[in-house]
Amino acid sequence: SVNPDLASERRTASFSVEKLTSRLDGGTEQTRIRRAVVEAIESDPIFSRENQYFQSQNERYEAAVRKAVHLQRKMHEMRWTENGPELKYIYRALSGDVAFLLHRVFMRCISLLGSDKQIAKWIPPASQYQLIGSYAQTELGHGTYLQGLETTAVFDITTQEFILNTPKISAMKWWPGDMGRSATHTVVFAQLYIHGQCYGVHPFILQIRSLQDHSLCPGITAGDIGPKMNFEHVDNGYLMLQNVRVPRENMLNKFCEVQPDGTYIKQGSQKINYFTMTTVRISLISDEVILPLMKACTIAIRYSAVRRQSKLKPGEQEAKILDYQTQQEKLLPQLAAAYAFHFINKYLQELLDRGYREIQTKNFDNLPELHAFSSGFKAMATQYCTSAVEICLRACGGHGYSLLSGLPSLYTKILASCIYEGENTILLLQTARFLIKCFSAASAGQPIPPSVIYLSAVKAGKCPAKNKLDFLNPDIYTEAYQHAAVRLVRSTAAKLQDLIQSGVKKHEAWNQCTVQLAQAAKAHCHYITVKNFVETVEKLDTEAGIQKIMKHLCDLFALHGIFSNAGVFLHDGYISGAQMDMVTASYLDLLAVIRKDAVPLVDAFDFTDKSLNSALGSYDGQVYQRLYEWAQKSPTNTQTNPAYERYLKPLLHNTLSKL
Amino acid sequence: SVNPDLASERRTASFSVEKLTSRLDGGTEQTRIRRAVVEAIESDPIFSRENQYFQSQNERYEAAVRKAVHLQRKMHEMRWTENGPELKYIYRALSGDVAFLLHRVFMRCISLLGSDKQIAKWIPPASQYQLIGSYAQTELGHGTYLQGLETTAVFDITTQEFILNTPKISAMKWWPGDMGRSATHTVVFAQLYIHGQCYGVHPFILQIRSLQDHSLCPGITAGDIGPKMNFEHVDNGYLMLQNVRVPRENMLNKFCEVQPDGTYIKQGSQKINYFTMTTVRISLISDEVILPLMKACTIAIRYSAVRRQSKLKPGEQEAKILDYQTQQEKLLPQLAAAYAFHFINKYLQELLDRGYREIQTKNFDNLPELHAFSSGFKAMATQYCTSAVEICLRACGGHGYSLLSGLPSLYTKILASCIYEGENTILLLQTARFLIKCFSAASAGQPIPPSVIYLSAVKAGKCPAKNKLDFLNPDIYTEAYQHAAVRLVRSTAAKLQDLIQSGVKKHEAWNQCTVQLAQAAKAHCHYITVKNFVETVEKLDTEAGIQKIMKHLCDLFALHGIFSNAGVFLHDGYISGAQMDMVTASYLDLLAVIRKDAVPLVDAFDFTDKSLNSALGSYDGQVYQRLYEWAQKSPTNTQTNPAYERYLKPLLHNTLSKL
Repeated sequence: SVNPDLASERRTASFSVEKLTSRLDGGTEQTRIRRAVVEAIESDPIFSRENQYFQSQNERYEAAVRKAVHLQRKMHEMRWTENGPELKYIYRALSGDVAFLLHRVFMRCISLLGSDKQIAKWIPPASQYQLIGSYAQTELGHGTYLQGLETTAVFDITTQEFILNTPKISAMKWWPGDMGRSATHTVVFAQLYIHGQCYGVHPFILQIRSLQDHSLCPGITAGDIGPKMNFEHVDNGYLMLQNVRVPRENMLNKFCEVQPDGTYIKQGSQKINYFTMTTVRISLISDEVILPLMKACTIAIRYSAVRRQSKLKPGEQEAKILDYQTQQEKLLPQLAAAYAFHFINKYLQELLDRGYREIQTKNFDNLPELHAFSSGFKAMATQYCTSAVEICLRACGGHGYSLLSGLPSLYTKILASCIYEGENTILLLQTARFLIKCFSAASAGQPIPPSVIYLSAVKAGKCPAKNKLDFLNPDIYTEAYQHAAVRLVRSTAAKLQDLIQSGVKKHEAWNQCTVQLAQAAKAHCHYITVKNFVETVEKLDTEAGIQKIMKHLCDLFALHGIFSNAGVFLHDGYISGAQMDMVTASYLDLLAVIRKDAVPLVDAFDFTDKSLNSALGSYDGQVYQRLYEWAQKSPTNTQTNPAYERYLKPLLHNTLSKL
Repeated sequence: SVNPDLASERRTASFSVEKLTSRLDGGTEQTRIRRAVVEAIESDPIFSRENQYFQSQNERYEAAVRKAVHLQRKMHEMRWTENGPELKYIYRALSGDVAFLLHRVFMRCISLLGSDKQIAKWIPPASQYQLIGSYAQTELGHGTYLQGLETTAVFDITTQEFILNTPKISAMKWWPGDMGRSATHTVVFAQLYIHGQCYGVHPFILQIRSLQDHSLCPGITAGDIGPKMNFEHVDNGYLMLQNVRVPRENMLNKFCEVQPDGTYIKQGSQKINYFTMTTVRISLISDEVILPLMKACTIAIRYSAVRRQSKLKPGEQEAKILDYQTQQEKLLPQLAAAYAFHFINKYLQELLDRGYREIQTKNFDNLPELHAFSSGFKAMATQYCTSAVEICLRACGGHGYSLLSGLPSLYTKILASCIYEGENTILLLQTARFLIKCFSAASAGQPIPPSVIYLSAVKAGKCPAKNKLDFLNPDIYTEAYQHAAVRLVRSTAAKLQDLIQSGVKKHEAWNQCTVQLAQAAKAHCHYITVKNFVETVEKLDTEAGIQKIMKHLCDLFALHGIFSNAGVFLHDGYISGAQMDMVTASYLDLLAVIRKDAVPLVDAFDFTDKSLNSALGSYDGQVYQRLYEWAQKSPTNTQTNPAYERYLKPLLHNTLSKL
């Protein structure tokens, strides 16, 4: 039965939860397909995540391989195909808890960078799992800066082979998924040398383990990199190479080739591949960043409607913690952010789809803009949502700290998204470089891409808001965000120019501006996210109830950003102190308004109890009962106390040598 | 051998590391004692933390009990006493990784709240570990709000016993340490009922497990609450009571007694006990908050001096990441914060010592001030330092995410400090209540305590700084902090007053101001921390080198706070936009200055490699070698691949039913 404290929250929803769910899915048909996939996966005990919080790294890995192998059968059984509409829901339903994800990257890499002949040779057996692939790029001493990789591939003209080596410990491949214990093959990135000359980093296909007995191949040292904050199910691995030889045909050669005589030839444009990498980066955001935040909000908000602590009014029963302003101020902005990022991510996906179509007609004009936008957005979204999940965790007090709440694993997993697929600071600086370039171009009267055209339309002015209600006008706050972004880009560009003109070398001047450049890039992304939220709300005019609550969330997202980054808006007086008080008043008012719909707003995310895997977040709100039941299954309760016979009993029975 | 990249950092130190270490310890003698304790503990293999990152919850618990039992022997062997100068270093040397900490709380509780007779009965056997105690206060449904506890103790006049019960699931005791698997006894807090009347929460001594075979006593259900984000070594437990009877003598009765006929009597003043609880709260900060931050800074800064990535200048070798402004801006403010909190914590300890002496002369005048200060400080320090550790972790990229870096466990452990010993938001609101009260008193011309006297000296004015160097003047920035704190307290007091005068009920008005009240409390604590740092630096005038670098850190701490909370200072124009640009310039300049001493500044914390337990943070900077060596000891490498025979082999050998 549903906890009455949660049931009462649902009775007063101001909108149709089911309709909002469809909106989020992109239509009722999508909702139907998603639910069918989730149902098929969750009803199959092999995919169960029960007891996951009690498992060791070895157990998690074994389960992930079991699931990956079973998934092949399941897809066949369900007639799900790699290109079908179900695919994106499968990973969601598994909560990413499955092996062989790098095997897919291995295949994609060969498909993109390999010749037709290489594709014909490797893709069919890989698809059939006659081999398991990985993708070995990152090294112990080298991450983001690809040119710094130290693994070498020397062309031996006499045998027509490449000789691969790990010249020093920092050159060891480190982190590749599926490589520690599963992979039989991998694509290795190494510096290509021909006749003593270096041609830069190239990809080579390499077998690392026997297909017969899985033993390591000659010259190969490989293993697992050990425990991490999360991703226990993935066997991130290390790889050391000692004079490992691969035939000339194993260098992926769609775009460059080493001929038998050692001649190096470049061919074709790689631009489309950079684009594909961008797409991959963005597609991760939805599964690895936005969904986890939606889950964290669901857990924390449902729990806050059930948890009662202290009294709000003397003489009454203890109050739901969701009724405290401080709790609302912790959670509701994160809920608004989950919606904001969902919408901007959808928009970005559409932009990328359009970009892909353009590129196929050889139109590369929008690539730099797309790249800059996706870099900054990846950094901003991962950083924002990671903090948001942490806030949700902390807002649940002690019970949030229990693994059984589900929040710790959401946090430790989303945290990794700030690091992988491009370190966030570096990505922000890429966006900043684009913004500075566009700003200079605009100043020189040259044309600039549409998303940054606002940089050229510099208006001085002040915010025209006269009372707190004016700050619920999207034009007012969108303009404020725009103004702040322009100011930060402009002032940083000016500082950069000043430094260079005063004689500081260009690279040094750049370094001295990077803290502010990163700020400017964030402000740009924040502005675009707010603007897109406003535009999304405008388009919801066929559904009054949904539009109204989404408008509130949009306002909250925008005003929360102004409230918590007040300095950015106050700096040049665009918003005055008195106006900032109006922002604060409207912001706090909104909390009380949205609080009423908080539970329906997380219900609309439509997570099953199994996918939340949380003792605090289940639909029925029976949190204490569930915590108690789950705790009893812990190995700390089901196994004999390991300390009793050895230490406690002698201590208590006084048989230890006494002091 | 020391990595040359780290060795070179040490050659250019601007001050004597050894002298700074002594300063931090409080004298050379303290340093000597600390090192002797650390040496004794670390040279004893039973206390080893090697392989800790590979252990399960059961293994961690067993090790913690083993260490706790061994510690008794060790203390005897080393002639360390419970009151000796070594005690505070023992826990530090063990990194808290030891059992029976709640046993100490059990004993302290009896000593404080028990009668002489009760003390004589329970303390000797507890000291001899003839029983193991715990402390059962928190319930599944009740944390901070003590009055809400639901466990009942009904006095049965016929048998002269209390009958203890857990009336519903939310009343189950939940979280007490040492209770899940170790404790034989506990102090239970329950609502006392006599003749049907409730007398509020009282403590009762209760046996829960047999001293003979450790089986649960009749009426007792108890166990472990399962996995948590950290504290795997602690058996946090649950406890359910069903008609458990304890004799009348088991209610701790120093301050109140139930007489045989059921008469309830109160006696004496409990004020001194509240004070003791405050002391406990603050003493935790040093071990559980400041030391972990110092460790995180040591690891991240040493690693950043060794890690090279990308090029800063074209044509040169890859740069140390510590040379990037963005990396400096991540780490150096956290380093400054570690010093700031170390100094304010010392100051607070002194304040508490003085308070204790006053109380013993029955002078309770300073209690409210001490309580308010320690509440807010606990909240501010735990929140600030938790974020700081997280920043250190993220700043180390992928390797920081590996458990072997030591950073994940520092983070997951310090995070708990935001929750235990008083939830931070509630603590901040306690401080705020005190500030509002003092502000009103001051407005009415009444005397207020010295630490808040500044609230009455309201000066309008503007910041007088004229150039960026002015912001290196402590008077300038301390005044700015003071001004901001006064403004926030004053404006929130005004809002509260306005709401009440407009007819909003008092408790509702309070709730509507809590977001701003918490802000005001934080601003107050931030001000006090900056002011104390300034005063500490002034007192260092006998050591020019140390004073100089501490002055830089103090400036950095202060300016970082203004830079990152710019809105608070810009709001009423006390600092103008142009002045904020000066703050930013001085702040960024300081990063480059302090960067030169960054490694010596963390070396001064004087952590041994064993206590850091980090592959990234060791003194010799051989990070890659150590990561590789440690990873090989992981059970994912030392144990047979659990997935190969069952899943991978059939898959690769094509014996699975093919698709």
